[in-house]
Amino acid sequence: MARPQPRPLGRVLGIDPAAAGATGFAVIETDGRDCRVLHYGAAKPLRGASPAGRLAGIHKLVAKLLQDFSPDAVAVESSFAALNVRSALLLAEVRGVVLLAAAQSQVPVESYSPREIKAKVAGSGQASKQQVQVMVRSQLQMKELPQPHDAADAMAVALCHIHSQRVRARMVRALSPRDAS
Amino acid sequence: MARPQPRPLGRVLGIDPAAAGATGFAVIETDGRDCRVLHYGAAKPLRGASPAGRLAGIHKLVAKLLQDFSPDAVAVESSFAALNVRSALLLAEVRGVVLLAAAQSQVPVESYSPREIKAKVAGSGQASKQQVQVMVRSQLQMKELPQPHDAADAMAVALCHIHSQRVRARMVRALSPRDAS
Repeated sequence: MARPQPRPLGRVLGIDPAAAGATGFAVIETDGRDCRVLHYGAAKPLRGASPAGRLAGIHKLVAKLLQDFSPDAVAVESSFAALNVRSALLLAEVRGVVLLAAAQSQVPVESYSPREIKAKVAGSGQASKQQVQVMVRSQLQMKELPQPHDAADAMAVALCHIHSQRVRARMVRALSPRDAS
Repeated sequence: MARPQPRPLGRVLGIDPAAAGATGFAVIETDGRDCRVLHYGAAKPLRGASPAGRLAGIHKLVAKLLQDFSPDAVAVESSFAALNVRSALLLAEVRGVVLLAAAQSQVPVESYSPREIKAKVAGSGQASKQQVQVMVRSQLQMKELPQPHDAADAMAVALCHIHSQRVRARMVRALSPRDAS
């Protein structure tokens, strides 16, 4: 069975979800070679918001980004490496809302573990936050280090998705029969 | 500081979220003494739906129930007792979407652990699924055992919320200064 050819990537919305702190977001565009960042930031939950109210805030943010930037894919950090079970579960609730927003906009969504993101973007699953920031800056040809680190992490997950798609596209090409031309 | 008096409960939407199986739901009404079930069931995810697509299905279901029945509160089972971390995280994603739907409809939402639900509804945190079904049937004066068990679990979480609210209301009355009349 022939695998479907992955379409060339244009825009990716990266989300670094947070249960209590700020949720990072970044819109990255690629022409197939170079990548640049169109928009990024980090959104803190409103003071005094209930847990459900915080989820509503994050859903609104992601839905707005999807509407404003029409990305071809959403890439989101998975929560499997969180420090303790309670935070991991809270983080998974946030992730659920991000996945929902993507599904509601009919945009495909992929999850990547923190280790995978570091390995793909900074060359090692053990890379520090600073090493990730430096590599993100270099790959996006930014003048300054991306700030805050939640936004840098969102750029990293978007870049990780772009790298993964490139590798998949290369594999598909390598595995397909050659053109008769 | 005086605590706000809990308003008398009318309708509660109980949700027993499931990551892979069927999500149970039940709408329970109380006049302050007796409880009865208005509507219940269990919704399986569509075959072949992506994880994000499943979340969208559950969000749609809960939003529709909120719209159709205008409950005063949503009660949802928490995922802290799930068997393994992976299922617990998937379950938390579903929970996130349920909490979101409640927040979007501005309906307050409370979470209860499986142990707490069994203790409040069946008298013991160790109660079996069958014991819960029997107690739910009795408290809701149903002719038959509630089926499927996902729906019975949703009735149980709604009843658990009603019991908790009654206890809270009694405590508030006990702690408030007596009327001068």
